[in-house]
Amino acid sequence: MRLVSYRHGDEVGVGVMADDTSFVALPKAAPELPRTLRGILEIGDAALTEARAAADGKAADYSFDDVTLDPVVPEPQAIWALALNYKGHIAETGLTTSPDYPHVFLRQPASQVGHLQPMVCPDPKVARAFDYEGELAVIIGKGGRHIPVERALDHVAGYACYNEGSVREFQSHNRQFGLGKNFEKSGSFGPWMMTADEFGDPSRQKVLTRLNGILRQDCGFDQMLFNVEQLIHYLSTGYALRPGDVIVTGTPGALPWREGESFPQYGGIKVAGVVHMQPGDEVEVEITGLGTLKNPIVADEAAP
Amino acid sequence: MRLVSYRHGDEVGVGVMADDTSFVALPKAAPELPRTLRGILEIGDAALTEARAAADGKAADYSFDDVTLDPVVPEPQAIWALALNYKGHIAETGLTTSPDYPHVFLRQPASQVGHLQPMVCPDPKVARAFDYEGELAVIIGKGGRHIPVERALDHVAGYACYNEGSVREFQSHNRQFGLGKNFEKSGSFGPWMMTADEFGDPSRQKVLTRLNGILRQDCGFDQMLFNVEQLIHYLSTGYALRPGDVIVTGTPGALPWREGESFPQYGGIKVAGVVHMQPGDEVEVEITGLGTLKNPIVADEAAP
Repeated sequence: MRLVSYRHGDEVGVGVMADDTSFVALPKAAPELPRTLRGILEIGDAALTEARAAADGKAADYSFDDVTLDPVVPEPQAIWALALNYKGHIAETGLTTSPDYPHVFLRQPASQVGHLQPMVCPDPKVARAFDYEGELAVIIGKGGRHIPVERALDHVAGYACYNEGSVREFQSHNRQFGLGKNFEKSGSFGPWMMTADEFGDPSRQKVLTRLNGILRQDCGFDQMLFNVEQLIHYLSTGYALRPGDVIVTGTPGALPWREGESFPQYGGIKVAGVVHMQPGDEVEVEITGLGTLKNPIVADEAAP
Repeated sequence: MRLVSYRHGDEVGVGVMADDTSFVALPKAAPELPRTLRGILEIGDAALTEARAAADGKAADYSFDDVTLDPVVPEPQAIWALALNYKGHIAETGLTTSPDYPHVFLRQPASQVGHLQPMVCPDPKVARAFDYEGELAVIIGKGGRHIPVERALDHVAGYACYNEGSVREFQSHNRQFGLGKNFEKSGSFGPWMMTADEFGDPSRQKVLTRLNGILRQDCGFDQMLFNVEQLIHYLSTGYALRPGDVIVTGTPGALPWREGESFPQYGGIKVAGVVHMQPGDEVEVEITGLGTLKNPIVADEAAP
């Protein structure tokens, strides 16, 4: 099952995909269910089973053209994100990371948009190195503390694509990434949550990032330094993971520039192969077996 | 005016302090107002004026003994926190920070409790260096982007005490603080928000932290590297500050241990003068002209 979070006028709801661009609206098909994906996940398996049954065989209520898609989970309690979780990305940045512990930071919800919604490029007077990061997002179903690695996947409700858009100059202002990973609408989370039963083993899939149709990242999830199970285990040693929480699992390295290409590099850490995003661009994060998250890049209207 | 967030059975609400330990419950005195402080701040000055008028001259509905106090803003959209914002703390840690840009990271709401509620000390098998950090918390009223320094204080609704409790071993796992600043119920935020008109100029006040009654931190807010106005300006270059957002402004250095004292130091960065918190302890963060946030320390019931 694939679930989207949407707005249609005053209606806020969760939908069950009928095909790749249209969905059954649960506020109509199962009005007793909560209106948010976090709410549905807080009820748990019973609510997911009910959603599945309510949508089964029904005609779609809306297509993506009719609605605004929100981030898959619009207001999770926590969005954990991973730095330097692929060897290729560690090598290209020249940065170090612990081999023993995941490298964790946080994003806040206003830093992300949904599928097809504009991601906002900082004004060039503010920053010039606005970079895509194609990543696998894990969405927690059943919460818990001290979750052992061998039972960690039982706590996953599903998966989604994430573009962990980053403003490099601000990321380099200090040792903590802080604002550089949290610019207004700098990231994207979508198009849908595919339930874990349907997605299967993440280590068998890969992520592909395209800017204006040109492939810039292409890497299997078996290349993660810390895999999904290890990340869930680590975070739950200190924090009670909650339904709807998100773990964004890190980005792989860049593919080399194509023959004859060369792009200016801004920001504290310059990485060949990366092409900064600009207003007018279109960026896609595809995860095999899951789907493709697509966003246009627009200029920041709140320019200084 | 001093405002608290509380729960009383099924009732969740905001109260206006009548004296230092009892308050008028706005769900009774002004039932048309939102039930959360974030909701009240989203309406803005009109709602604060209404709250003030509704409570004026009324007898208190509850004392602190009758209710559970929540963090001043229980679910802000973002909790921005500052690393290394006092020269004394920079010196004692031996760490570096940019002189040009604030050193920013994020906390998530489940990492904090309210006044008088237990703060949770990690099990010694998980971590042993659980440290207080007395800080000034700034609560945003009017939101905004690109806020100039000279108008920044117009965006402050009020101030509160914050104990930015930190688990040092996890903070040192990697360069990003991540989980080390976000253990379940490791911090505290209270007792109330004092409105900006009543608190006045923060740079004229100071913070005092006591563990079991013994003074361990004592420093004026005029010692901040980046003051409240500069922090608001910086964050708003990339993020639209929202009503109810919190900026926790950093902690000063430790006072020296008293004559004859010496305490074991755990964690990657050992700081003389610091005494790690233990179950059974009581910790207070006082801000002059504002009030005192007090919490008992308890053992983690979710020990591995």
